[in-house]
Parts: sequence; C-alpha cells; structure tokens
Amino acid sequence: MTIQRIDPGQRLASAVVHGGLVYLAGHVAHDPNAGVREQTAQILTDIDRHLAEAGTDKSRLLTVSVWLADIGHFEEMNAAWDAWVDRANLPARATVEARLASPAWKVEIAGIAAI
Amino acid sequence: MTIQRIDPGQRLASAVVHGGLVYLAGHVAHDPNAGVREQTAQILTDIDRHLAEAGTDKSRLLTVSVWLADIGHFEEMNAAWDAWVDRANLPARATVEARLASPAWKVEIAGIAAI
Amino acid sequence: MTIQRIDPGQRLASAVVHGGLVYLAGHVAHDPNAGVREQTAQILTDIDRHLAEAGTDKSRLLTVSVWLADIGHFEEMNAAWDAWVDRANLPARATVEARLASPAWKVEIAGIAAI
Repeated sequence: MTIQRIDPGQRLASAVVHGGLVYLAGHVAHDPNAGVREQTAQILTDIDRHLAEAGTDKSRLLTVSVWLADIGHFEEMNAAWDAWVDRANLPARATVEARLASPAWKVEIAGIAAI
Repeated sequence: MTIQRIDPGQRLASAVVHGGLVYLAGHVAHDPNAGVREQTAQILTDIDRHLAEAGTDKSRLLTVSVWLADIGHFEEMNAAWDAWVDRANLPARATVEARLASPAWKVEIAGIAAI
Repeated sequence: MTIQRIDPGQRLASAVVHGGLVYLAGHVAHDPNAGVREQTAQILTDIDRHLAEAGTDKSRLLTVSVWLADIGHFEEMNAAWDAWVDRANLPARATVEARLASPAWKVEIAGIAAI
C-alpha cells in the first residue's frame, strides 16, 4: 500500500497518508508572537489545508492531541477549537501540558483523520 | 467508510470508531478527589465501557498513552493497570508526565483498540 | 483480524501488529547513563529491530512521537534522528517535553509504521 508524504521537510513530513488515513504531525503557529487563541487558530487553518491536501476535512477527524505550554491556557485554546471544530462530527481528543520545541510556541496539535 | 462517535460532548467524543479501530479520547477519573490508583481504576472501567460500546474489549487494545501529573506516581498507576490489563494480550504503551486540564486529575489515559 | 504482540513483558508489549500497521510502544535507551544523542541512537536501533520483527522498516514509518525530559536537548536528539531517518520517506512527528518514568531516561520515542 502506497504512502504519500505531504510537505516533507528536512526531518519530518507535515502529514502522511496511508490506508485511508492521514497522520498529522505536531503543528505549531506561524506567528510565535501571537496569543494562545490566535496560535491555535493558525494551527487549525494549517490543519485544514493539510487535510484538504490529503483529500479530507475536519469532519472526518478521528483523534486529536493538543499540547499546551501552559495548561492554564486551556480555555483560551478551546475558544479557537470550539469556533473551528465540527460539532456534528467530534473527534476524540487528549489535551496535556508540555513545553514545546520553541518557548514562543504555546500550542501544538497533531491528529489522525479518515479520508 | 462510516465514522461512529461515542459519547460526543461539546468539544470532543469519548471514542471514535472507524475502519475496524476505536480511538479513545483522553479519559480522566470521575472522582478527582480519589488517589492515583483509584483514579486509574475509574478510568480503566470507563475505557472498558467505551470499548464495549464499540464492540470490543481490552484484549484487543493496540496502543495506550498514559499521562501522569506526577511521574512519581508511576508504580501507583501501574498497580491499577496490572490488576486490569489482559496479560495474554498486552498493548504497546507510553507513559510520561504531564500536567492535566484540571489540577485534581492525576492520571489521563487514551489509546487505540481493534474491534 | 489477528493481533501480534512483539516482545510482550509484564505490562506492555514493545510493539503490536494489526491491520497492516505496527504500533511501537514508548522506547527508551538501554544505557541510561548515555547522553541524549547516544540514548536516541540506542532507541532508534531498537525501533529498527522491532520494525524488522513486524516485517517492515523505517522507510514505512507514518508517525512518530518524541518526548524529551529536557526540551533543551532538541537539537542533540535531532542529531541522532537526522543521521537515522530516511530522508526520502519522512514520517509525521511531534516532539514535546515530558519527564519520563526514570529520571535517567532523557528520550522516549513511540510511533506507528505501515508494514
């Protein structure tokens, strides 16, 4: 079965397609100076784009992992999440605190979607 | 291929079924005042229920993620895990420390099982 | 559909094979006194072995999770990663900081590969 790599970089691909699923890498914001809600919105827009490249969309998300540099930002992240997620087609999700590769990044989101 | 959402809430589903797999959201304890072992046991009982709703059980778990608010509670979590897990059918697992959405939660567990 | 457990221990299996995928448990280094780069290299060698037992190899990795006990070791971990990963077949990846079950472990790596 073939494997498609979306936006491969130097050490990882942004998304990988195989067997009717797309595996999303940990996505971070383009603008590390943005606040938590805006960083989350940027990430979710990026995820929309990668899902589209894989031939699917957020209504077919199966599971999502959210890391927050500060778990105190849980509700601020959720403000962007709630405005974005398809309420009729909710994924499983786990959200925990973790310091991220750059201290400017406040949110990182990965996941798996069906195509 | 259809997607079934189990216990959908406002922003996530407790479990999502697709392609012969069930993706479990991060599960936390009902009683945040319970100790680590009891919180873990509550979570695992909840996971049993969601696996059953998906038409499967713990003997078909493929991979599990465990987050502990304090990694010093590793053995206490494992006491509940060891009493629960099917020794003849062990999943892959990763356990790391992470602060969770509520400071009262000491354990969070997610995973993927075959149906 | 059958499930194959690779290197099952007391409470988890090192890898689990199902439906054309292999789910890798969180792998840690054999030598906890080694530095970050060497721990990472040990883990990746172990992952190579478990992928081979599942009938696949690193060119078919779909997604990888990396936990660093200190995110300040990001580049040191990546030195071993970059020397190992198949540049023509990059997986999705997420790397975050998390304290691990033993304070001597500086890196833990899990993932999913196609067979």
